[in-house]
Amino acid sequence: MESQAENLAAVLHIKDIIRIEKRPIPEPGENEVQIRMSCVGICGSDVHYVQYGYTGRSVVKKPMVLGHEGAGIITKLGPGVKNLKIGDRVAIEPNSPCRKCNYCKLGRYNLCTDVSYCGAPPHDGSLSYYYKHPADFCFKLPDNVSMEEGALIQPLSVGVQACFKAEVTLGSVVLITGAGPIGLVTLVAAKAMGASKVIITDIIAHRLQVAKTFGADFTLQVSQNDIVEQQVEKIHSMLNEAPDISIDCCGLEETVKLCLQATRSGGKLVVVGLAGREMTLELGKGIFREVDVRGVFRFCNVYPASLSLIASQKVDLKSLITHNFHLKDTEKAIQTAISKEGNPIKIMLHCN
Amino acid sequence: MESQAENLAAVLHIKDIIRIEKRPIPEPGENEVQIRMSCVGICGSDVHYVQYGYTGRSVVKKPMVLGHEGAGIITKLGPGVKNLKIGDRVAIEPNSPCRKCNYCKLGRYNLCTDVSYCGAPPHDGSLSYYYKHPADFCFKLPDNVSMEEGALIQPLSVGVQACFKAEVTLGSVVLITGAGPIGLVTLVAAKAMGASKVIITDIIAHRLQVAKTFGADFTLQVSQNDIVEQQVEKIHSMLNEAPDISIDCCGLEETVKLCLQATRSGGKLVVVGLAGREMTLELGKGIFREVDVRGVFRFCNVYPASLSLIASQKVDLKSLITHNFHLKDTEKAIQTAISKEGNPIKIMLHCN
Amino acid sequence: MESQAENLAAVLHIKDIIRIEKRPIPEPGENEVQIRMSCVGICGSDVHYVQYGYTGRSVVKKPMVLGHEGAGIITKLGPGVKNLKIGDRVAIEPNSPCRKCNYCKLGRYNLCTDVSYCGAPPHDGSLSYYYKHPADFCFKLPDNVSMEEGALIQPLSVGVQACFKAEVTLGSVVLITGAGPIGLVTLVAAKAMGASKVIITDIIAHRLQVAKTFGADFTLQVSQNDIVEQQVEKIHSMLNEAPDISIDCCGLEETVKLCLQATRSGGKLVVVGLAGREMTLELGKGIFREVDVRGVFRFCNVYPASLSLIASQKVDLKSLITHNFHLKDTEKAIQTAISKEGNPIKIMLHCN
Amino acid sequence: MESQAENLAAVLHIKDIIRIEKRPIPEPGENEVQIRMSCVGICGSDVHYVQYGYTGRSVVKKPMVLGHEGAGIITKLGPGVKNLKIGDRVAIEPNSPCRKCNYCKLGRYNLCTDVSYCGAPPHDGSLSYYYKHPADFCFKLPDNVSMEEGALIQPLSVGVQACFKAEVTLGSVVLITGAGPIGLVTLVAAKAMGASKVIITDIIAHRLQVAKTFGADFTLQVSQNDIVEQQVEKIHSMLNEAPDISIDCCGLEETVKLCLQATRSGGKLVVVGLAGREMTLELGKGIFREVDVRGVFRFCNVYPASLSLIASQKVDLKSLITHNFHLKDTEKAIQTAISKEGNPIKIMLHCN
Repeated sequence: MESQAENLAAVLHIKDIIRIEKRPIPEPGENEVQIRMSCVGICGSDVHYVQYGYTGRSVVKKPMVLGHEGAGIITKLGPGVKNLKIGDRVAIEPNSPCRKCNYCKLGRYNLCTDVSYCGAPPHDGSLSYYYKHPADFCFKLPDNVSMEEGALIQPLSVGVQACFKAEVTLGSVVLITGAGPIGLVTLVAAKAMGASKVIITDIIAHRLQVAKTFGADFTLQVSQNDIVEQQVEKIHSMLNEAPDISIDCCGLEETVKLCLQATRSGGKLVVVGLAGREMTLELGKGIFREVDVRGVFRFCNVYPASLSLIASQKVDLKSLITHNFHLKDTEKAIQTAISKEGNPIKIMLHCN
Repeated sequence: MESQAENLAAVLHIKDIIRIEKRPIPEPGENEVQIRMSCVGICGSDVHYVQYGYTGRSVVKKPMVLGHEGAGIITKLGPGVKNLKIGDRVAIEPNSPCRKCNYCKLGRYNLCTDVSYCGAPPHDGSLSYYYKHPADFCFKLPDNVSMEEGALIQPLSVGVQACFKAEVTLGSVVLITGAGPIGLVTLVAAKAMGASKVIITDIIAHRLQVAKTFGADFTLQVSQNDIVEQQVEKIHSMLNEAPDISIDCCGLEETVKLCLQATRSGGKLVVVGLAGREMTLELGKGIFREVDVRGVFRFCNVYPASLSLIASQKVDLKSLITHNFHLKDTEKAIQTAISKEGNPIKIMLHCN
Repeated sequence: MESQAENLAAVLHIKDIIRIEKRPIPEPGENEVQIRMSCVGICGSDVHYVQYGYTGRSVVKKPMVLGHEGAGIITKLGPGVKNLKIGDRVAIEPNSPCRKCNYCKLGRYNLCTDVSYCGAPPHDGSLSYYYKHPADFCFKLPDNVSMEEGALIQPLSVGVQACFKAEVTLGSVVLITGAGPIGLVTLVAAKAMGASKVIITDIIAHRLQVAKTFGADFTLQVSQNDIVEQQVEKIHSMLNEAPDISIDCCGLEETVKLCLQATRSGGKLVVVGLAGREMTLELGKGIFREVDVRGVFRFCNVYPASLSLIASQKVDLKSLITHNFHLKDTEKAIQTAISKEGNPIKIMLHCN
Repeated sequence: MESQAENLAAVLHIKDIIRIEKRPIPEPGENEVQIRMSCVGICGSDVHYVQYGYTGRSVVKKPMVLGHEGAGIITKLGPGVKNLKIGDRVAIEPNSPCRKCNYCKLGRYNLCTDVSYCGAPPHDGSLSYYYKHPADFCFKLPDNVSMEEGALIQPLSVGVQACFKAEVTLGSVVLITGAGPIGLVTLVAAKAMGASKVIITDIIAHRLQVAKTFGADFTLQVSQNDIVEQQVEKIHSMLNEAPDISIDCCGLEETVKLCLQATRSGGKLVVVGLAGREMTLELGKGIFREVDVRGVFRFCNVYPASLSLIASQKVDLKSLITHNFHLKDTEKAIQTAISKEGNPIKIMLHCN
């Protein structure tokens, strides 16, 4: 833990313009903590903000510190904080909801319309030396969990949320479309909940190789020219049955169609991170067979479960990290994500 | 209860050709009962079979007795029947599942791939003087429930299933699209489960008037040229909030779109009886806000609840019946359904 | 709405000692409102505090304003309040949870270990002229709901919570033990959710008469010398089946035993407000048949549903109020509750 | 697979009297299969039948073949069987429900009041050379699952049912009381569903050693003189929190008390195989904190999940088997179970 009191931050000014700036060190308010950041992972949405200046309806209108996949060390406690102490190593759940609306009171704070989600405009992210955050959204890491793994709890939580929403449990047979970072963490979560068979699809053979190392029971390389019905047949034949659950980690018309038709009657289809495009679907092919279609938005109340999975050492999530950069090289890191040079899966930024 | 031992049946031979034929009186097998039919309601699917020779993937390939909304009197017990006795007045749940597949064992026998559903090809329906059926799918009517009401339990059960799937309960705010027979029974079921506000839409003003008499709190007349976003706004403004639940009883692209956008985040959209068309949807507008999209296929384990609602006399479902015909006039009845002469809602056939 | 700036409060100093005292008018803090109280109902726990100085583990150690069943008019808004305005008539949900613990984040704030529940030691209640409360726990009353009804939303919510926990829905067959205020509101809630048959038991014939007026389908007068097995038989014979759900509103060994045995296999037993006594039970008689035993603690997220039920005018909850007193006569009101003179059901205090 | 057409069976005639008898080879009826048995495990209930002539309300009134934990090879197909073929190696789920009652139709066939459960009076069990059973309750074993493991699917299913009922999932913190066979399989199931921390208690140190090898994160040796509150404190301190879920595998007053108090508010307590004794409980200590108490009766629809767990090779369930005997030595096997000589956990009988 260093002591030099300087706060560098990677700030996205406008589409394409990232600057490393010196910012004031934030003072923690009531029930908040100040954190000396260690690691911040780069997410597809960070890259999208840089490339296009927005994602979905979130538009970057003023300079914003990037980053929402962070872990660090507590350096200061605001008034009222009891669950943490200085020196604690923590993973940061990026949510900071209003705590007063119906969604918050119902335990679905991810749907809070007044939530501050770190690194989503207009809220500054955690890709800086110092950051402050509500103490109850910081989770203490046990000694056997590294800072990098602490940062990985964020993407893992997307997979855990998807699997909770899909009600994956012992014996579940699961189809996952897409073997990118989200597909892979969903695979990891599904196997950890007892899924007996997971089949994962992707266009890129290399990704399917990686999926194998994370426990995929079956992999299927697809191509954009495939006929959906034939994909369905292949999947059913490889599994020797239809999947109980499909989790679409692509958000494409083709993959939603595939999932709708492949899932067994009465099963579930969870769509993760749908990009909001129009799709031409024959909904009835799933809905009419009582296949429920469920969406997820970020996550809610899953950090403890995700953390427990990483702490169990049953899965080596660190191997998702293919590239490491210092915060000062954020631009280079983002460029690597865009160029895909070196087959990046997860790129990790370091703040020390 | 008449004794004349003749069994007339309304048989659909092929698209457009209905004949009233004399058939052998069916003998009840093990755990079956023989029923002297009293009333059989006409459903949209019956009309569709007559007009087009199929519905969805069900094709009329050989002569089939029509009818699946029936009630009658037990005239004979097969071996093993204990739950009923001769003379009992019963409503007939049209399902007769295989009882051995995973769906049956899981309590979702409506998804049984080997189900016999009466009046769906190739299985004969109940629009005849005599019919036989598994005894456990016949439900004894209390004295205060008429035969006509007994027949109406079938369509009511579609609404009850939709509301169960949507988890309607005390205080639910519900949007129903379509005020035809299914929309109306869904409205009745939703109010009976404690929905605090139900808004129902239709193109036809007369149907909305009827909906008022069945307890609709708000009605909205729509037209095919409406802009979805404006409909959403109107609905939110009339309810003073977004509905928790939408139940689409039309199966049209416009109505599915409306429901997806109108439902509050984290709510539910149940699609009833989707016709299997392709639709161009921006799924993300609902899914991304964790609006779950659920389908229903017929119903399962809901007859007792539907029957209890009718027996409670809290709703006068009989007033759904706008037209009555004798079985011998089945063709005329179907023609009335097609021509819509006299604004038919439910047309009832009588077998006495 | 009067303007005289005086704040009288009914303060319990110690067991048996109630004093009407002048207190400072409370200033609303951030996200709080100041309320000029109109009505406050008396609950069994208020009476217990006065008689014994405690309930369960809650002990009155310093003077405390009584009352948690309140309604009033907004007279001042603290900073940040947006959902209410001055002059709004509101029902007050007595919860004020910490909003940061796991229970709060999971949507189960009634289990928050740091909750302030108004009128439970050491937290002052609302039986005063002026009171302040978090704005998001105040619910605006529509014009057709009186202040007395606003106060009754609190006890009704106990019944609603019990029925939600029991998953009462259309067609449910329900046994309620005890026809006191909680038994009656549970009855009202169960019928509103579609229960087809509700049977309610009590020792006192008069209470069962009242239950009839609130929609009980069957009533059974019991006595302390009854044999449980015989009560079970009577209940099954009156209902013509075993109840799906039992809700024990007495918290006595006899009634818990009755419910355990009477409930059908696979059903649910909800125990409301158990007093914490030791009981000798043969748990297996229910548990072994997969009867789930669930408890409730106050309520959580149910005020809107309760309010909607009262606003629907489907039930005349006001008729629960048998006695009315002014706040200045709180002692007399409590004495009436103790003496049971005039068969009190709900005693209402008025602050104007 | 041997061909000698002789059917020896271990028949319990009356308390204490087991005879090895020659019985006719059973002919499979419609939808039934004939099975040449390979292995049958001995369960505590088998031993109880031998020692006392009954368990719970099930009384041995006429000679009965023992055994319900069986696996074997299909030797003959009755009419209508399609899911299996001669030579298939199968695990036998001992249920054979009526398929027509409400419980069967609701998917809870374990509650069917007309169920035949093999080896529970008056229904013959599978501890014989030949046995017949409904084909849909026989589950084909993959090549990598041995016959012994096939037989172990039955006890494992008790643990899986308990964990499903308790809703164990990723991150669950679980207390299991009792490290006998049922406690151990429950431990195995809980870890397979993603439980992050499982603590298991027992009186016997040796059993806790075994529990360690099956993945227990913590073990606590208790004694009958322990004070419940102190046990609770130890458990909370070892886990560093209260368990979300407690699963009582003893059915004793002390352990139910422990679980009621140890479980966190809002958590779940599942009671497995409660022996039906009277207990003096302070239910409120759990119920009042919304700890739900759930029972399980055998299992329902879990064989596929249990089988998938064994097939995954993630757990070596075979190591539960401490003793092996031939069917002809059933009496010796039962005596070993009674004498506990050689610390038996699971005793396996072989029919070849």
